[in-house]
Amino acid sequence: MAHIQVPEGLPGIRGLLAFRPETAGPLGALADALLHAPSPLSPGERELIAAYVSDLNDCTYCHGSHAAIAACHLQDEALVGAVIRAPESSPISEKLKALLAVAGRVQQSGRAVRTEDIERARHAGATDVEIHDTVLIAAAFCMFNRYVDGLATSTPVDVAGYRERAMFVATHGYSAVTQAGDRVPR
Amino acid sequence: MAHIQVPEGLPGIRGLLAFRPETAGPLGALADALLHAPSPLSPGERELIAAYVSDLNDCTYCHGSHAAIAACHLQDEALVGAVIRAPESSPISEKLKALLAVAGRVQQSGRAVRTEDIERARHAGATDVEIHDTVLIAAAFCMFNRYVDGLATSTPVDVAGYRERAMFVATHGYSAVTQAGDRVPR
Repeated sequence: MAHIQVPEGLPGIRGLLAFRPETAGPLGALADALLHAPSPLSPGERELIAAYVSDLNDCTYCHGSHAAIAACHLQDEALVGAVIRAPESSPISEKLKALLAVAGRVQQSGRAVRTEDIERARHAGATDVEIHDTVLIAAAFCMFNRYVDGLATSTPVDVAGYRERAMFVATHGYSAVTQAGDRVPR
Repeated sequence: MAHIQVPEGLPGIRGLLAFRPETAGPLGALADALLHAPSPLSPGERELIAAYVSDLNDCTYCHGSHAAIAACHLQDEALVGAVIRAPESSPISEKLKALLAVAGRVQQSGRAVRTEDIERARHAGATDVEIHDTVLIAAAFCMFNRYVDGLATSTPVDVAGYRERAMFVATHGYSAVTQAGDRVPR
């Protein structure tokens, strides 16, 4: 049971967004800017960073959600699982490996990011904007994960539910989900 | 030197907001909703939570900024220092002590928040909205701190600069600062 009285039937962050619309607006806009809006990193790459950090933070709900959304974008569920389990040995670009390594440092702490982590990313072709976005996505999921688990929201165990919802988010974005509220398929 | 090329003369998060206006908008709106908008917790209490978590995350820039803003609201710089150093023995309400303890748990991880931490806050008079806002403010500073330090932004050591800027933010809020850009006193 969640630590606060959230609307029934809305798991994870969804109950929290419904509970406090004043903060739901900016949080939805931030998620859209980071993950859905045009950016030099593809939506699939950005969702992989989100899912990877959520897994490192042991946040089952966010990991399940964003792994499913990444799989929608990349059309490859097995690849997403492989990347999250072991990015360095997965079949992705050297640039994305280096950016995931930066994200892993950010998950530990801001000060854990080393100059050599950034140099590795730059050497693999990452631009300043891509490095910026990677750090901010990783940092933002250190927020979202703590928000969801710090208030002990409910976590569905049914993978099909994450898949169904992922398709809606991958198509319409995050603010659309918040605005659609309960009409969104669960 | 910052890991990416941010505009000169804008320390901490200010350079990052100027670098990437696409994410600056939602981040400013989130900071306003959490710290500046009307809420059952006073702006001073909320800034104390932000400064306390920033100190736990060892983020000198955010700690300096938000301690100064808290001191503006509370008109007591010594009190702010005492709360951040040792909240349990500082002269604040039992409710705020309990909420700072919850924030400290969130700083560790979402899963570190225990039912007894929430019960203590509730027993001291905290409402669901106050518990929600405390968790989200603490979580958000786990993002802001990582953003600022993960990109190795510059940190002024001059306390007077934080004080001067704090007065502007305490009065006008966070989005106003972002919009005012370089015209804001540094």
